[in-house]
Amino acid sequence: MSVMLGVDVGGTKMAFGLVRRDGSLVGEPWEEPTRTESSDAFVGGLVAAVRGGLDRGDEQVAGVGLGCAGTVDWGRGAVIESPNLPIADLPLAGLVSDSVGVPVVLDNDANVATWAEVRAGCARGLRHVVMLTLGTGVGGGLVLDGRLYRGATGCAGELGHTIVMAEGDLCACGRRGCLERYASGTALERFATEIAQATDRAERPDRSAVDYGRELLRLHRDGELNGETVGRLAQAGDPAALDAVRRVARWLGLGLANLANIFNPEMIVVGGGLSSLGDLLLEPARAILQEMAIAPNKDVARVAKAELGTNAGVVGAALVAWEELGARR
Amino acid sequence: MSVMLGVDVGGTKMAFGLVRRDGSLVGEPWEEPTRTESSDAFVGGLVAAVRGGLDRGDEQVAGVGLGCAGTVDWGRGAVIESPNLPIADLPLAGLVSDSVGVPVVLDNDANVATWAEVRAGCARGLRHVVMLTLGTGVGGGLVLDGRLYRGATGCAGELGHTIVMAEGDLCACGRRGCLERYASGTALERFATEIAQATDRAERPDRSAVDYGRELLRLHRDGELNGETVGRLAQAGDPAALDAVRRVARWLGLGLANLANIFNPEMIVVGGGLSSLGDLLLEPARAILQEMAIAPNKDVARVAKAELGTNAGVVGAALVAWEELGARR
Repeated sequence: MSVMLGVDVGGTKMAFGLVRRDGSLVGEPWEEPTRTESSDAFVGGLVAAVRGGLDRGDEQVAGVGLGCAGTVDWGRGAVIESPNLPIADLPLAGLVSDSVGVPVVLDNDANVATWAEVRAGCARGLRHVVMLTLGTGVGGGLVLDGRLYRGATGCAGELGHTIVMAEGDLCACGRRGCLERYASGTALERFATEIAQATDRAERPDRSAVDYGRELLRLHRDGELNGETVGRLAQAGDPAALDAVRRVARWLGLGLANLANIFNPEMIVVGGGLSSLGDLLLEPARAILQEMAIAPNKDVARVAKAELGTNAGVVGAALVAWEELGARR
Repeated sequence: MSVMLGVDVGGTKMAFGLVRRDGSLVGEPWEEPTRTESSDAFVGGLVAAVRGGLDRGDEQVAGVGLGCAGTVDWGRGAVIESPNLPIADLPLAGLVSDSVGVPVVLDNDANVATWAEVRAGCARGLRHVVMLTLGTGVGGGLVLDGRLYRGATGCAGELGHTIVMAEGDLCACGRRGCLERYASGTALERFATEIAQATDRAERPDRSAVDYGRELLRLHRDGELNGETVGRLAQAGDPAALDAVRRVARWLGLGLANLANIFNPEMIVVGGGLSSLGDLLLEPARAILQEMAIAPNKDVARVAKAELGTNAGVVGAALVAWEELGARR
């Protein structure tokens, strides 16, 4: 039986794993540093690491799947732009394939994660699945009628930059009111910072009177307030941190409602770092979905936490390659 | 060569036409009144009219396509609910088919209009097409990878009720901030009424000083201000009516940008009554799309006015039936 080499290409490191057709890993995934000095160095480092991976297994490696953050032109196998790699408009799949002598399939990280959940995660067996990845930003993946949907030029699923608040807050993309601005790890940090600052303003000179928000204020003063620390505080039951999470959840719920109305999916999978909050985030978001989406869509769309965690990139990249190379043959 | 009977089922009348596989009409479409006294009367009237249609042509009628406003369960051939028909959760396709003895296919009006444009209208030959129908409300249709996309239970494409302004104006659906509230014929009427009222407040006692908005105010006082009359004024160059159209266009542009980001389509077709404004509406909307959508999606998505006009319902219902009955055989 042959395996596929899955590669999760990140800005500081690349994760590799040998993956069977059913999504199970052969052995443990491993990591290599990403070379970011130049485009050539990056490609050279990737090719060398892929060669190492191809030699690693006892089994025949059928091909390579690359998952990469950024805008990918699926048809050309090219990275158009990437937020954390020194490459632009680069036909990466072809370059790697020419160097290593096996077929290479390239897709973006959100598509790869979505396909992983559909093939081997919480959405196994479903045909209509939308995924939101909530990290620093918000990514999206679409599985429609059982296939990854990539649009005309491979760039469908930019769900984080749909506008949910016309003329709202300024997003990192330069536009206003994007979902990403309100339902990401960055948003959780921002909402918690606002609470910390309000606590600061409300404090008496002896710093004794205000309990609500005091832990957030402490993190803020120590320069340690971020999505992760706020999430941990919320999980420990801190009321102010919980309020910050609920505020993100309301926006997430609005995003989920829009997706339910647009796609009438069987499931919306929520992944990315923020999804580690689980039902603390998802329960209030589900309630908003119920309020804001039409029937029957609101009842059809289950909202689930992504299952595959840190291996989603490696497994998903390999599974997309399995799917695509199978279809080509 | 055989033909398909296409039926556009409206709340006051039903339009019928015999349609060839390429979307061309055999003879002229005709109309029958819709019976709305009861569910039985409605079905009886439809069946009688369909029988009449089947006997009408010289050519063999292969089947019937029904297009219907409302929520349709595609898999069951059922109307779940319809805003202007006296039926609910009714397996209409099966009932008609059993009565007339030929296959019947049911879909909602927006899907049918979208398919008509893809097969025989402005999006002919394209595989990734989203359509917005701008009338009293806003409907949506999705053609993805060359096929109508209907979601898990046939209710995908509720684009009018995606929220673009969190906690915005109250929509007819009971929620707040839906696209329909800002980019429909109803919205044009509302924006124009606001201008008329401002003109009213600004007028001097002799009613002579204010030119801007005077025509809208006249329509408003005569009870004749609506999307159609405002549109005609705008086409005649009235500056206040043009401002109302531009306001709708900005919201439409935001909706188009979201669709470009989500679907990366080749084309977004704008249909419905409001689309008769043509470039008066579409040019400013295209400019907003360019501002608010990401690259390359914003450059890939052309925005076009629907071509098929009043016959879209009849032709589209027949073409959906052609597609579906062809696939079943």
